[in-house]
Amino acid sequence: MSVPADLVLYGYFRSSAVFRVRIALNLKGLKPELRFVHLRKDGGQHHSEAYKRVNPQQLVPALISGGHTIGQSLAIIEYLDEVAPQPPLLPKDAIAKARVRQIALGVACDIHPLPNLRVLQYLKNRLGADEEALLEWQRHWIGEGFAALERLLAGDPATGKFCHGDSPTLADICLIPQMTNARRVELELAPYPTLLRIEEAAYRLPAFVAARPENQPDAE
Amino acid sequence: MSVPADLVLYGYFRSSAVFRVRIALNLKGLKPELRFVHLRKDGGQHHSEAYKRVNPQQLVPALISGGHTIGQSLAIIEYLDEVAPQPPLLPKDAIAKARVRQIALGVACDIHPLPNLRVLQYLKNRLGADEEALLEWQRHWIGEGFAALERLLAGDPATGKFCHGDSPTLADICLIPQMTNARRVELELAPYPTLLRIEEAAYRLPAFVAARPENQPDAE
Repeated sequence: MSVPADLVLYGYFRSSAVFRVRIALNLKGLKPELRFVHLRKDGGQHHSEAYKRVNPQQLVPALISGGHTIGQSLAIIEYLDEVAPQPPLLPKDAIAKARVRQIALGVACDIHPLPNLRVLQYLKNRLGADEEALLEWQRHWIGEGFAALERLLAGDPATGKFCHGDSPTLADICLIPQMTNARRVELELAPYPTLLRIEEAAYRLPAFVAARPENQPDAE
Repeated sequence: MSVPADLVLYGYFRSSAVFRVRIALNLKGLKPELRFVHLRKDGGQHHSEAYKRVNPQQLVPALISGGHTIGQSLAIIEYLDEVAPQPPLLPKDAIAKARVRQIALGVACDIHPLPNLRVLQYLKNRLGADEEALLEWQRHWIGEGFAALERLLAGDPATGKFCHGDSPTLADICLIPQMTNARRVELELAPYPTLLRIEEAAYRLPAFVAARPENQPDAE
């Protein structure tokens, strides 16, 4: 496997799924060409015919590598970890790998899909939810998910400085962007001391800092 | 890697995340000890203190293997594929593997979390959604996700009898249970001919049939 030289990343600064991929690319030292898809302009540029041809799922991120398009942040990150194995984002041991994926999916499946732009638009436009109800919805699902992750991580000897051991993995790559979203809706984070401690460790690494939404060329 | 001999699966017949794991186990010829967690009895048995000790995320499925508990269906299936590699549920090639994971995550992240029991309960109890609004919600998100998958699969030469090639992968394992859920809410499936064709191929295999909710010991 050789590191692909022709990577192109389609993204949006605020998307936390793209934030995940940026962290992975930074940790691997890969610098793709960046293309920007504004999710709020022009009725959502991801809905355009042009972008549909790039990614039929019409979501960001999408990564082009060797002429192939890959969608879904977790599929992209697992791909990068296979073609550019250093530093590894998953442990070698099968049980440890499963634990890392379980934590990552605890964010990617149990939290992230719910406090999401398209879902908020549905709640507002079709169920008449007001601003306060939308905030409450976001806080509820992030809070539920964080409580589950805190229970999973706290007191487990496999938890180290990061979610698994002392170096960042796919689990941290999913967790940290979700914490940025939690702050955006002013969720009280004190009940999740383990998550806060891991976030602090992550932001000691330039790969996480450089990936933050406000540090992107398309940030507003 | 040796096939673990002491597998225990915590599940619920109607959960489509557990349905995925049942298909994978059947394809691998693995027969775990089954334990049942009724999601609708006793206020949801997954909320019990006893089950919280099994899986701190308090969701089904959970798989115990070698004394370790793994949660999250996709983490479990990737684990099974590593410790019991035959037949493989992911292709060997990195790009092909990414495509299979992209399709699987298109179900697991973009569809399944939304028309979910806990979400329906929130919509009903906290946002006052009535039965018709709940049905509409479920049909909307499954329909959106299926339309994306149909675009992704139809006309792609990598699509075969199954989502990727001519044998079942993680992608089909995620797709097929979601189609059962779509039927439960009477979503019109004619707009997704590729998905219907793949479903037909899947149910020619006993592994998929035996995994269906109505064929489980805890079915009602």
